[in-house]
Amino acid sequence: MASQRRGPLVALLSDLGTTDTYVGVMKAVILGICPTARIVDLCHDIAPQDIQQGAFLLDTAWPYCPEGTVHLIVVDPGVGSERRLLAVRAHGQHFVAPDNGVLTYVLASAREFSAFSIERHRYFLPEVSQTFHGRDILAPVAAHLASGLPADSLGPEATGSLQWLPVSRPVVNEAGLEAHVVHVDRFGNLVTDLSEQYFITWQRETASDRVVIRVGDSVIEEVCLAYAGRQPSELLALFGSTGRLEIAVNMGSAAQVLNVGRGAVVMVEARA
Amino acid sequence: MASQRRGPLVALLSDLGTTDTYVGVMKAVILGICPTARIVDLCHDIAPQDIQQGAFLLDTAWPYCPEGTVHLIVVDPGVGSERRLLAVRAHGQHFVAPDNGVLTYVLASAREFSAFSIERHRYFLPEVSQTFHGRDILAPVAAHLASGLPADSLGPEATGSLQWLPVSRPVVNEAGLEAHVVHVDRFGNLVTDLSEQYFITWQRETASDRVVIRVGDSVIEEVCLAYAGRQPSELLALFGSTGRLEIAVNMGSAAQVLNVGRGAVVMVEARA
Amino acid sequence: MASQRRGPLVALLSDLGTTDTYVGVMKAVILGICPTARIVDLCHDIAPQDIQQGAFLLDTAWPYCPEGTVHLIVVDPGVGSERRLLAVRAHGQHFVAPDNGVLTYVLASAREFSAFSIERHRYFLPEVSQTFHGRDILAPVAAHLASGLPADSLGPEATGSLQWLPVSRPVVNEAGLEAHVVHVDRFGNLVTDLSEQYFITWQRETASDRVVIRVGDSVIEEVCLAYAGRQPSELLALFGSTGRLEIAVNMGSAAQVLNVGRGAVVMVEARA
Repeated sequence: MASQRRGPLVALLSDLGTTDTYVGVMKAVILGICPTARIVDLCHDIAPQDIQQGAFLLDTAWPYCPEGTVHLIVVDPGVGSERRLLAVRAHGQHFVAPDNGVLTYVLASAREFSAFSIERHRYFLPEVSQTFHGRDILAPVAAHLASGLPADSLGPEATGSLQWLPVSRPVVNEAGLEAHVVHVDRFGNLVTDLSEQYFITWQRETASDRVVIRVGDSVIEEVCLAYAGRQPSELLALFGSTGRLEIAVNMGSAAQVLNVGRGAVVMVEARA
Repeated sequence: MASQRRGPLVALLSDLGTTDTYVGVMKAVILGICPTARIVDLCHDIAPQDIQQGAFLLDTAWPYCPEGTVHLIVVDPGVGSERRLLAVRAHGQHFVAPDNGVLTYVLASAREFSAFSIERHRYFLPEVSQTFHGRDILAPVAAHLASGLPADSLGPEATGSLQWLPVSRPVVNEAGLEAHVVHVDRFGNLVTDLSEQYFITWQRETASDRVVIRVGDSVIEEVCLAYAGRQPSELLALFGSTGRLEIAVNMGSAAQVLNVGRGAVVMVEARA
Repeated sequence: MASQRRGPLVALLSDLGTTDTYVGVMKAVILGICPTARIVDLCHDIAPQDIQQGAFLLDTAWPYCPEGTVHLIVVDPGVGSERRLLAVRAHGQHFVAPDNGVLTYVLASAREFSAFSIERHRYFLPEVSQTFHGRDILAPVAAHLASGLPADSLGPEATGSLQWLPVSRPVVNEAGLEAHVVHVDRFGNLVTDLSEQYFITWQRETASDRVVIRVGDSVIEEVCLAYAGRQPSELLALFGSTGRLEIAVNMGSAAQVLNVGRGAVVMVEARA
């Protein structure tokens, strides 16, 4: 009941940082158009132009957003070029973003989706710059969607294939299961592309009851349940809050201890 | 209709950073007094005591804020001294700030404005410290304005001249048009004091159809329309989202490549 | 009247940082359960696992929060271990936090409080990870409290003693009053554990009309009223916005100038 009286969530994800007014201005634009919107910052510290990181972090967040959430995603190195802007409906939520692959994970996990090319200038700010479509096009469009505008009012259905990024996936090879670090979080935890489900299936198929995990020269003897499952400063492996295998250090930073980052290989091997 | 039922926006700009609870406490104070306020962070990463940067960033944001927005601006190195606190009405918005020049750009572009000296203790917190008037005076006053209090209830009209900062402006000289970097943004873009309007007028008057732009030893052969108008890692010049000339690097940082910052000279010259 | 129609404040304090989506996801969870909640970020830049800093910063903020505020505190190095999760009612506010000492200052200043052990799974997310109870348990519980759920619905009263941290306190010795730096703020101000009240009592008892303050080799000749009470770059001492003695540099950073941090000793001595 209460929720029906409120505008939907508008969730923001960008590489705009917090040292300028870029994000604040987008919020002012949204609230000028849709005063009842409730705005949530998912993350603004995506590395500049890092579409891959934006796509990954979006995937860690949208499953926790309520139905009807409008996502405004501004990682847009191609601003002012010919790249399309999209309004995608998937998972019962809206995603307003450049067509540059930042929606890869959202689309990959959707049973079905619809996508519209954002073209109707009447839903933009009166003046549109060539350098900040987040403010001039995407924010007002997100606000109009939050106000109830149907996505098909924004422009024609987006034809042809949408941009996709290569998605990092674990590889089964002779040595075992090769996973890859896809994100280093604030705590220095190394998040890999290996989901718990994939791991369990592999374990069952290979009858690998017990495993060892190798990162560089380090060996971890088992998969823990929690960070506190090891002594402080000890290296450990567990399935983290995104459901993916993480390499961590209890009360410390695995990224610092191991001196590795995105792209590093994490080998999961059956124990002899 | 919906907007009439909502309190106005309260937009926050400060040098208080996000590693303490200073900003959060101001928000708690505001919402304690005006529960319907909608708070937007414009920027809290102004360099400590950098009034000039605060004034500039405020100027990039207020034009996008809805009518009636109450701005709470806390860049206040003189806290506890004799400096005045002001409630200014300009551009259909309110600006609550110390009288230290942080409103320079807001006032410079206003056709008219009114300014009141904030003096009525009944609108302050019961206890007023000498070190954090943002929390104890400005936040509660902003909340009262957001609740509908007329600005003239806060104190007498501010007489005498308000504090102004020197405003960086482009200079026409023999070599051409001398602009100056006034802000380096998150992406390393060098934002100058040269507005597109000023540039167009100069170009018309000097019949300089084509221009070259010099920063240090680097030469840029033309003004682009978008960051993507050059190859990745290439230096470029364009009029950015604030309407001012920017020096940028596509997919990179001009500040790093050129190793320059605020105050650097950018020369715009007619091409021979 | 307006405030009665709004859900209470939910105030967030954590060590989760802003470079991931951890905080954003907690907000989405809260607003999914309690759409009328108004969320305020108190601070998310607590150093990873630094319960002491979290406890201190919480203490600088809760006194400014309106009655009924629900605090969601996520500094939780023991996540997934046997540590309890608590819903504490104190000072007319709610505090949802791990039982790890992060509530030490809140409890120490409360005339009375009640504490419940959070155990009823019906108020958690359907799937509970072993690595992020902030998202899976504490955020939904905070949202339910904000929606009006009585705290005793969450689980049994928390029996036995709660975890307390050692609290830094000033010490009277032969030389005078020994205070200790407990926090370094964004401006490089060194905040000590010496409250103005404690200082005044000591001053009265020792008839120390005038004092000198020593930090390392530096000597400060008196206690100022405001940062601007000294010339730029000059070292000074004052009672800051938290009511505690601070060592500061006008327009500069005392932490940098003195090269000291948390734990450093600040001696207050009667002047000969």
